[in-house]
Amino acid sequence: MNVADIEAAATRLSGVSVRTPLLQNHELDQIAGGKVLIKPECLQVTGSFKIRGAYNRLSQLSADDAARGVVAWSSGNHAQGVAAAGAMLGIETTIVMPEDAPQAKLLNTRRLGGEVISYDRYTGDREAIAREIAVQRGAALVPSYDHEHVIAGQGTVGLELAEDSRYLDLPPDQVLIPCGGGGLSSGSALALKDRLPGVSIYAVEPVAFDDTRRSFRDGERRRIEDSARSICDALQTTMPGELTFPINRDLLNQVLTVSDDEVRAAIRFAFRNLKLVVEPGGAVALAAVLSGKLPTAGRTTAIVVSGGNIDVDLFAAIQTEPN
Amino acid sequence: MNVADIEAAATRLSGVSVRTPLLQNHELDQIAGGKVLIKPECLQVTGSFKIRGAYNRLSQLSADDAARGVVAWSSGNHAQGVAAAGAMLGIETTIVMPEDAPQAKLLNTRRLGGEVISYDRYTGDREAIAREIAVQRGAALVPSYDHEHVIAGQGTVGLELAEDSRYLDLPPDQVLIPCGGGGLSSGSALALKDRLPGVSIYAVEPVAFDDTRRSFRDGERRRIEDSARSICDALQTTMPGELTFPINRDLLNQVLTVSDDEVRAAIRFAFRNLKLVVEPGGAVALAAVLSGKLPTAGRTTAIVVSGGNIDVDLFAAIQTEPN
Repeated sequence: MNVADIEAAATRLSGVSVRTPLLQNHELDQIAGGKVLIKPECLQVTGSFKIRGAYNRLSQLSADDAARGVVAWSSGNHAQGVAAAGAMLGIETTIVMPEDAPQAKLLNTRRLGGEVISYDRYTGDREAIAREIAVQRGAALVPSYDHEHVIAGQGTVGLELAEDSRYLDLPPDQVLIPCGGGGLSSGSALALKDRLPGVSIYAVEPVAFDDTRRSFRDGERRRIEDSARSICDALQTTMPGELTFPINRDLLNQVLTVSDDEVRAAIRFAFRNLKLVVEPGGAVALAAVLSGKLPTAGRTTAIVVSGGNIDVDLFAAIQTEPN
Repeated sequence: MNVADIEAAATRLSGVSVRTPLLQNHELDQIAGGKVLIKPECLQVTGSFKIRGAYNRLSQLSADDAARGVVAWSSGNHAQGVAAAGAMLGIETTIVMPEDAPQAKLLNTRRLGGEVISYDRYTGDREAIAREIAVQRGAALVPSYDHEHVIAGQGTVGLELAEDSRYLDLPPDQVLIPCGGGGLSSGSALALKDRLPGVSIYAVEPVAFDDTRRSFRDGERRRIEDSARSICDALQTTMPGELTFPINRDLLNQVLTVSDDEVRAAIRFAFRNLKLVVEPGGAVALAAVLSGKLPTAGRTTAIVVSGGNIDVDLFAAIQTEPN
């Protein structure tokens, strides 16, 4: 697993995923006291970065494997990515999703042709359900983060960020990346450290799902309680990945955490100032900058806004809260 | 007034306005039956394209004129553009705004340092009020569309669109541009016709404010009734500009109109699929494509999304309507 795998993924993804732009915003620069580059993966195909890893995995299946279809589990963004990649490649997709997943994510996964199997997020074991289906059907699994092809695909976010920031003559001093299972942060960190060797990289988690922070602190994988709750439906992972964690441990400078209230404020800021629709899990890196979780004055900071799939009712409720 | 003025404006605006990207979206392509390129000026500084024309005008004032400040009238987006340009250049700005302008636009204009003078949109004469203040103070006027420097600044939208679409190897067959007083469409048309001679250009208006459509049909400027109403607060102009209309008459292929309901549906589509916050006036070109106002199958169509400054309450209300 190295940067050549990410470069190969970028070639596969050419014409499939969007090369999302790097945006800048005066209000955000003023708050940060420095330059902030925004990589808006909410503008990506299916509304999050997940198409990158899913397509990179599905497009490398053997013809035999592809013919038997694939199985995945996901709270929604990976589900849409897998369903979309399957639709593009003519591969049948089955996705195990929590029954309380955002409606927009459930509907879009079905609309893209994915077969959705529901389970209870707090009592069911999605991985066990998915593995059973995979065995029954002889279908390949598409893990949402712990697979080299998935990590390499997500790493194209970091690759684009590094290349485009250099093109703008604004190479970041530090990059903040939302972290659930760690696929996006580990893949992107590999690419960023290759292209911008001196860059500092921070993963950002919801404070209630700080498994990567605890694991990073202890130097080995830690599991948090199943009873944790967060508004960030996309980042509710209880333990870092076997493949993703060693990469994150080696390449991250630190793991930051943000509260649900800080996430809500970031979603409001994105609506009012960035004119972007951002989902809770997609807003954690922005939230970390807005709430001053690390020094930004006089520095160039890049943040990944990883997704925008949020239900209308929640979005409207968040917008009408006092700031 | 020619494309060299627009190229000069682009140079002045370098580092001031954002070079907004060209976005693409699968759902939109599917609905159109062809490729659609989106130029999202909602991501622009102050949330609309208006900073372009305002800065291009203010930055060319003599030192004497700049010292006496400027006066403008605007429903809100030009107001923010003028206030922001004034703040950047150290020029005092006074803006006459309707008292029912969106709260976000009023607040942002003040926050940017603009002095706001309110009037009643349906009984007051904003131009007369602004001209009186300008005479009293010896201040220069910054018209929202009918000035060569303003038209040239807005034309940089078309210039970027032409250049970036060629870079993507997707030169559009047709471009749709929101139209109020006609500054954005006339300036952009000049640049587009220079860079992409065969392109078709359509202005899009709210059906209740179809002054440019009527004028285009008759070959001379027509005024519509003051009693017209539309959700598109940014496009409530009752007569095309003296400078903008001849350019639009010569370069546009047609003027399209959309209803308020079509605009609301476009704002919902932008939230759900594009993950962009779009204001009513900014959504008319998108609305025209979504509601099939012109053939798009098998063609490459570019649309300008001209602004995203919408109040939370209206946005939430539109999102929760049935489609």
